[in-house]
Amino acid sequence: MNPKQLVGEKATEYIKDGMIVGLGTGSTAYWAIMKIGEMVKNGLKITGVPTSKATEKLALELNIPLLDIADVMHIDLTIDGADEFDAYKNLIKGGGGALLREKIVASISKFYVIISDGAKRCEVLGDYAVPVEVTPFALNISIDQLEKLGCEPKLRLAEGKPFVTDNQNLIVDCKFDKIENPLALSEKMNAIPGVVENGLFVNMANLIITEDGNGNLVVIE
Amino acid sequence: MNPKQLVGEKATEYIKDGMIVGLGTGSTAYWAIMKIGEMVKNGLKITGVPTSKATEKLALELNIPLLDIADVMHIDLTIDGADEFDAYKNLIKGGGGALLREKIVASISKFYVIISDGAKRCEVLGDYAVPVEVTPFALNISIDQLEKLGCEPKLRLAEGKPFVTDNQNLIVDCKFDKIENPLALSEKMNAIPGVVENGLFVNMANLIITEDGNGNLVVIE
Repeated sequence: MNPKQLVGEKATEYIKDGMIVGLGTGSTAYWAIMKIGEMVKNGLKITGVPTSKATEKLALELNIPLLDIADVMHIDLTIDGADEFDAYKNLIKGGGGALLREKIVASISKFYVIISDGAKRCEVLGDYAVPVEVTPFALNISIDQLEKLGCEPKLRLAEGKPFVTDNQNLIVDCKFDKIENPLALSEKMNAIPGVVENGLFVNMANLIITEDGNGNLVVIE
Repeated sequence: MNPKQLVGEKATEYIKDGMIVGLGTGSTAYWAIMKIGEMVKNGLKITGVPTSKATEKLALELNIPLLDIADVMHIDLTIDGADEFDAYKNLIKGGGGALLREKIVASISKFYVIISDGAKRCEVLGDYAVPVEVTPFALNISIDQLEKLGCEPKLRLAEGKPFVTDNQNLIVDCKFDKIENPLALSEKMNAIPGVVENGLFVNMANLIITEDGNGNLVVIE
């Protein structure tokens, strides 16, 4: 079994009948959703809340009953991937550009499970750039203020043009060296008025399910 | 001279040749802009940065040279109104719905002057509801979390429909009783992932120019 499938299927063991389940996005979450589809086919009664259009499409194909994020007040359990994580369950997320939706889903989830192959584990966050969602008219000002926090900010492009989020905002990818205090950094970023949200997820994950590269599961509680 | 004109014209005394000047919005800022137009006609060289379409229109009529907020990295002096203020220069702003733009302008202003008639002064902020700009799909979740901070949140309507901001977001007006610690409240609000920005302006105003109700200027430094 490939590592992504291994961790993705393991996470579904936390699902119980009657739950509202947040369905993550990406190549690891894919395996969790496939397994949930199988469980639903075998009689499991849950309602899914997709974190992206791609996940919504996959879940519909698998006949998983769905609710829109706009229509739920809480989620019992969310299973999602991450771009980078450490032993303290700090995460960098939003590589796909949906960090605002992902953070909102995380914030209303009673139990938030991250699934990831072992390659994304790090000692200290910072290998991956932190995506920051920014209000378009405040782009230059925000880049200036993000740079003062010690990073190299770079406007994200798609096919040569600025990448536009679902919320009609822009993404600035902020490459730091070592992020020693992700909570403080996240607060400083969000205090910049042009910043809508950032991709540092601190004190959100309850559990990280990963693996050691040799086919063995590793669970960080 | 009416109180709004009195304080509005007083604020223009801080303008010097060569400055980039943030131009506020509303019935008090109107008088400052009118005076600036007169000063420009008499030879003052400044560049204005309007905080709204209405202000842009007025400034153009007065032949004040303008730059868009997207094209400036700093502002030397901004003159703007407030919905409510206290003796510590804490403000509630955004009654017109442009709080995000107003806060960004404030954040890049070296000197930020608030002009207001005396009726908006309070001992403790809270008579006025704090406007909070919210991402549409996170409306219900945000209302729920704002309520937990101790307010009565109310979706702002315009002609029976949700009021939509320039940034395609919604406004939730949050009526608190007494806001004893506006800085802490502002941080808590901004930490809600669905919240884009809030109308509490703390540690931003350098000066408040107001009056005592009897035609006498009062300056809070």
